[in-house]
Amino acid sequence: MTYAAPLREMLFTMKEIGGLDAVLAQPGHEEVTPDLVEPILEEAGKFAAEVLAPLNHPGDRQGNHWEAGVVTTADGFKPAYASFCEAGWHGMPARREFGGQGMPTLLSTAVLEMWKSSNMAFSLCQMLTLGAIEAIATHGSAELQQRYLPAMVEGRWTGTMNLTEPQAGSDLAALRSKAVPEGNHYRISGTKIFITWGEHDMAENIVHLVLARLPDAPPGVKGISLFLCPKFLVNADGSLGERNDLVCASIEHKMGIRASATAVMSFGEGPGAIGWLVGEPHQGLACMFTMMNHARLNVGLEGVAISERAYQQARSYALDRVQGRTLGREGETNATIVGHPDVRRMLMDMKARCEAQRAIAYYAAGQMDRAHGHADAEQRRSAQQLVDLLIPIVKGWCTEGAQLVTATGVQVHGGMGFIEETGAAQHQRDARITTIYEGTTGIQANDLIGRKLARDGGQVMGRLIAMMRADAAAVAGQGDALLQRLSVALSGGVEALEAATNGLLALGSREAAAAAVPYLWLAGTVVGGWLMTRAADAASTQLASGSAEGDFLAAKRVTALHFALHVLPQAAALRDSVLHGAASTLGLAAEQF
Amino acid sequence: MTYAAPLREMLFTMKEIGGLDAVLAQPGHEEVTPDLVEPILEEAGKFAAEVLAPLNHPGDRQGNHWEAGVVTTADGFKPAYASFCEAGWHGMPARREFGGQGMPTLLSTAVLEMWKSSNMAFSLCQMLTLGAIEAIATHGSAELQQRYLPAMVEGRWTGTMNLTEPQAGSDLAALRSKAVPEGNHYRISGTKIFITWGEHDMAENIVHLVLARLPDAPPGVKGISLFLCPKFLVNADGSLGERNDLVCASIEHKMGIRASATAVMSFGEGPGAIGWLVGEPHQGLACMFTMMNHARLNVGLEGVAISERAYQQARSYALDRVQGRTLGREGETNATIVGHPDVRRMLMDMKARCEAQRAIAYYAAGQMDRAHGHADAEQRRSAQQLVDLLIPIVKGWCTEGAQLVTATGVQVHGGMGFIEETGAAQHQRDARITTIYEGTTGIQANDLIGRKLARDGGQVMGRLIAMMRADAAAVAGQGDALLQRLSVALSGGVEALEAATNGLLALGSREAAAAAVPYLWLAGTVVGGWLMTRAADAASTQLASGSAEGDFLAAKRVTALHFALHVLPQAAALRDSVLHGAASTLGLAAEQF
Repeated sequence: MTYAAPLREMLFTMKEIGGLDAVLAQPGHEEVTPDLVEPILEEAGKFAAEVLAPLNHPGDRQGNHWEAGVVTTADGFKPAYASFCEAGWHGMPARREFGGQGMPTLLSTAVLEMWKSSNMAFSLCQMLTLGAIEAIATHGSAELQQRYLPAMVEGRWTGTMNLTEPQAGSDLAALRSKAVPEGNHYRISGTKIFITWGEHDMAENIVHLVLARLPDAPPGVKGISLFLCPKFLVNADGSLGERNDLVCASIEHKMGIRASATAVMSFGEGPGAIGWLVGEPHQGLACMFTMMNHARLNVGLEGVAISERAYQQARSYALDRVQGRTLGREGETNATIVGHPDVRRMLMDMKARCEAQRAIAYYAAGQMDRAHGHADAEQRRSAQQLVDLLIPIVKGWCTEGAQLVTATGVQVHGGMGFIEETGAAQHQRDARITTIYEGTTGIQANDLIGRKLARDGGQVMGRLIAMMRADAAAVAGQGDALLQRLSVALSGGVEALEAATNGLLALGSREAAAAAVPYLWLAGTVVGGWLMTRAADAASTQLASGSAEGDFLAAKRVTALHFALHVLPQAAALRDSVLHGAASTLGLAAEQF
Repeated sequence: MTYAAPLREMLFTMKEIGGLDAVLAQPGHEEVTPDLVEPILEEAGKFAAEVLAPLNHPGDRQGNHWEAGVVTTADGFKPAYASFCEAGWHGMPARREFGGQGMPTLLSTAVLEMWKSSNMAFSLCQMLTLGAIEAIATHGSAELQQRYLPAMVEGRWTGTMNLTEPQAGSDLAALRSKAVPEGNHYRISGTKIFITWGEHDMAENIVHLVLARLPDAPPGVKGISLFLCPKFLVNADGSLGERNDLVCASIEHKMGIRASATAVMSFGEGPGAIGWLVGEPHQGLACMFTMMNHARLNVGLEGVAISERAYQQARSYALDRVQGRTLGREGETNATIVGHPDVRRMLMDMKARCEAQRAIAYYAAGQMDRAHGHADAEQRRSAQQLVDLLIPIVKGWCTEGAQLVTATGVQVHGGMGFIEETGAAQHQRDARITTIYEGTTGIQANDLIGRKLARDGGQVMGRLIAMMRADAAAVAGQGDALLQRLSVALSGGVEALEAATNGLLALGSREAAAAAVPYLWLAGTVVGGWLMTRAADAASTQLASGSAEGDFLAAKRVTALHFALHVLPQAAALRDSVLHGAASTLGLAAEQF
């Protein structure tokens, strides 16, 4: 149940897929010189392996303890969190102006992957806090920023997002929590559920961001405002004052990420929780949406990270477990199960999916840096368009892929995989939430076909398709048989994606929505195949120039081939599913189910 | 979290796919008249819904308690088991000569599906006991049969299978447990793991069947013998004597089926557990293999059953949960989520897979009855060949399908699916074991391509392909547009299966093994599509003759169309995966992973 950060693979993907050199050359990243990147990754890897990974399984077993509104985290979490903050990891991705290190998204993405791999439950606390910091930094008043952000960046205080209510899950229009003005602040009341790290004992204070309605609010999503409600009120000098009128009513018993408390928060059981408006009245949803791309990238990254962890565990089991004669190698005794062809198939599938998922996530992260900081405005605009198109794919495809990879991880273990002590089952249980929170796969897919595809008539997707086609042609011309096979497979995938895109654009909105998820899978599969082709191309170039990492680079080529031969063929089936439309999907009356 | 046996669907599938009328007309089933079938199913459905289903979730939460070798089952299990036996359900599938009711496999399959759907953990106890009964009835001495079987058929005593040892999982050749002759019996010693219902408090005695080696045994699988070791020795008059030298050393903490104790059994910590040989010396594996087809059908049926349960739960949630505006139906307020096109897609996928899985399992069950009892020897032989070919597909495909269906069941619930109180997560956790025990999917696939396909050069598969092709042609000729679409889809699938079969037969054994699981998925997908086509054809005929069940029959047609349009297209991708062979799957050295 150990974890080792895949440094070589991460660096390769950052450089060859994420465009690390170009990102570091952008204005604003002068302090992050290229020679700093590897040491940062190494240190983070050490912290993940030595401090966070050992707590992952015990934390799952023990979970959190709730009593009378107080949540006690699992043994070891509190000191680990203190070390995490002390080492400066907590604020690393946050803006420099409030005490963070303002790392490029591409670099922080690789580091965050390690926290998520080593201990997904633990990592959620930082992830939520970073989101809250970003919301306050973007939309909060200068006073709120000064009073709250330094401690949040340090990690002394953590942050949460209070969106969901019992009657309002994905449909925020149905929110009922109320905010009533009182002097320079508001009194908030209402019940919020599914609040990740909503209450715990690792930090001095917890800063809740809460969606609620003002008395004059219009109905629906246009009447929702965002408020900051701290657990303890904060005095002007930054010291903690009275306890606010909010309490953790209970915590959930969940399938996975059990070491993270998922709280039911009750605001205003007394006079109302004191809160401050963040951003303009009725603009709460817009404020949340500012952070959406980062939040969805991060949950997609959880898919990558938990896949990587499951892969490492399965690999280690397959290399250690002595069992059986191996077909075609009957002379060997005491062979490990990695010799069995079907175990190989499972490991190759896991490895290929992990690397393709990572490639998509890092590519999007690199484009986010480009969109944020490229010197040229046209380049920024163009990168932002790609980011907007890719984010639902990163979130949807990487997390759906994590379901397959972690399930296969259990399967590699045979009966031992079903025994909780082994640890493989936890990865599958932890992964299960990733296709659900921060917008289900269905919601990502509707975002993709609606706001991203239909709104511009498929223009940006057309540009992406043209880029993929150009790369397929380029690698075909290099006289390398393996690259030629990749080119053929990729071209087939791109054709399927183009046909499905055109077919989808011609459908009515209900019919298109019925095909949205297969379309998202298709897009993820083809983009994954594209980036694996680019990776194999880069590996081939490095190999030809006599790199010392021949084994790694040769494996990258074979892994790309595996993706091309065994994953990309699904593109045609998914295209068919999209094109066959909704005849059967919407063909039954509700009472016929 | 309720369960209602899908009686109409079960009866339809038994009749139209399983060939119920022909099975009941066979010699030996004179006592099971057709008019008895529906009442039996109704009574079983009542018992499943009223007694077993309510214990399913509490049993998962509570689990079993182990203390000093004694296992206490979850609250309610003991009385439920007593009622189960008293009502005669326990021995229903067992042979009549020892007190069972000797029901046809097709009928008992439908009844067993209900136990598995309503409470999979509970159902395992009967399943294991039935297997042990069959082994003793087939291979045991008359004395063992008389002394043990009547109480086992009644359910007063339960049975277990003790195969696995810590160093010997799927590879039974590595077994080390010993049996030393002593008078008319043997002294058994060794440690066995993963013993389902190996110890519990629901029955007076537990009859363990144990694989062990005699002192003169040859190495490997040809030196394994089967022994009967009761927990309490049994006196000549059937009363219980001394406690035998075997003990439950611990029970496992598992991902699912938590209400069933999975025991580590320690035999012979003292002078050795007293046991009796079942069958001939060194023929233990052959004795176990006698039961293999039934055992694998039953685990495949667990896939069907847990899929059905997950479907029912998701359907009920989707029909009840009020949320959001529905795309294209913005006028409706308080709409339930079943209106969302993507929720429809998920439910249709679950429904189509459930029904296709059930069709394959019931078809195989009907062929088992035919193989066992048809009046004509040639028909029996021919049916047995189909059974042997189909069993690994039933086991592998239905359980792999259950992973998808139960995961989708969680997804339909959104965030609530991740909360254990909802119950959806338990179905996914329970389903997880089904692709592992009784031979992993990899082992099923190797059985399919080895013993079933390669051994006869693909003859029986060729016969199945010809049958499917003939049916595709037959439905195309009926002037029904929907049936024509099914025919086109099925023909494409059959072609893919034929190409993959021929490709596979041309591969070397290691290369073929690397493609075995995709081939199994392909075969399951196509056979599922075939039987759904037959079901749609039968439904069309009944509709045309003015059946009163128009809604059900029309839904069956649409569901078959969904399978044809959204599942069958994967056949081509799977064919590609098989034909692309092992270039990438076996392309890395172990140290490159």
